[in-house]
Amino acid sequence: MRVRNRKGASELLESNPQYVVLEPATAKGKWRDLFGNDNPIHIEVGSGKGGFITGMAKLHPDINYIGIDIQKTVLSYALDKVLAADVPNIKLLWVDGSDLTDYFEAGEIAQLYLNFSDPWPKKKHEKRRLTYKTFLDTFKEILPEHGQIHFKTDNRGLFEYSLVSFSNYGMTLKGVWLDLHASDYEGNVMTEYEAKFSSKGQVIYRVEAEF
Amino acid sequence: MRVRNRKGASELLESNPQYVVLEPATAKGKWRDLFGNDNPIHIEVGSGKGGFITGMAKLHPDINYIGIDIQKTVLSYALDKVLAADVPNIKLLWVDGSDLTDYFEAGEIAQLYLNFSDPWPKKKHEKRRLTYKTFLDTFKEILPEHGQIHFKTDNRGLFEYSLVSFSNYGMTLKGVWLDLHASDYEGNVMTEYEAKFSSKGQVIYRVEAEF
Repeated sequence: MRVRNRKGASELLESNPQYVVLEPATAKGKWRDLFGNDNPIHIEVGSGKGGFITGMAKLHPDINYIGIDIQKTVLSYALDKVLAADVPNIKLLWVDGSDLTDYFEAGEIAQLYLNFSDPWPKKKHEKRRLTYKTFLDTFKEILPEHGQIHFKTDNRGLFEYSLVSFSNYGMTLKGVWLDLHASDYEGNVMTEYEAKFSSKGQVIYRVEAEF
Repeated sequence: MRVRNRKGASELLESNPQYVVLEPATAKGKWRDLFGNDNPIHIEVGSGKGGFITGMAKLHPDINYIGIDIQKTVLSYALDKVLAADVPNIKLLWVDGSDLTDYFEAGEIAQLYLNFSDPWPKKKHEKRRLTYKTFLDTFKEILPEHGQIHFKTDNRGLFEYSLVSFSNYGMTLKGVWLDLHASDYEGNVMTEYEAKFSSKGQVIYRVEAEF
């Protein structure tokens, strides 16, 4: 998601240390302490405007959520939502998805979400797709054995690519939805993007893939 | 596919031994002799009215094709097409897909096609779906190591099920198409069913899965 720079985004992020962890490398191996409990920690890589993670955190108070985004302005909008939700089980990080092993010990994250990730449709940009094998290497490192990635997108090309990429990596597809909103899947929390594009008739794809 | 019984179907099948192998168990391990060459043999399980297999046989004269169907009348319509096509690289069998190991030695079949298989949507009929694990056991036995199944359908539920079934079986998805006719896939041969339903706007799904 590309957005215009927001004036004051940095200040907003810096002034809310209860939600925004500005130096996550110092928290490596200590996330349970930071959350103050032993609940499982789920991460959304590319949390965008925060609708998903905030909705999930409200729905599942016994799970801790970490949202990361590489764009400061986008993260600041997510922070708006988190502040409004006023729930204790969210942290936000302004970091890159390829650096996650700098911030999390092996197995420290129980589950990982990718929602409407940038499709990078050109073949020459394949390595930037979050379901490319080098990202899967990183995700595998911070997840436990048999850890899962839950991935949603409306982009057909990225979804086709990702099913094949997961499978070639040796992951097992535990569930596939080719029209999520027409299915009997329960408990779906929509992202801002998902609400907008599905209302226009766009099909939403979803997969649960296990290492 | 359900069709009305066709009068004379048996006689038609019986009077064309160059195409219809009525006692395939006697040919087990000898299919190369029957075709009279060493070309790879591909099989379509549930060949319906024969449009796919006939089109493929014309397009790929260096591959031998076997079409099987459990319904005599349906197979007789496929025979009409084969007779009209007048190609030497097709055989038709009036048999059940679960019995294939009775007719083929291990590795005797190079590749297997499933096209628009009966979706058996009720959970209690799961075992009848051609992508259920017991069918995969059978298919694996007659295919070589790393043999592939190429599967097309317009049925979303069956396709979702099959991706998960292949994956849980330990197969690797080598390619996935979520809208085959809108893709750049080349060389697609449509079945009669596919032509009819895609013209009504139905999306066609396709997967290549490898043992």
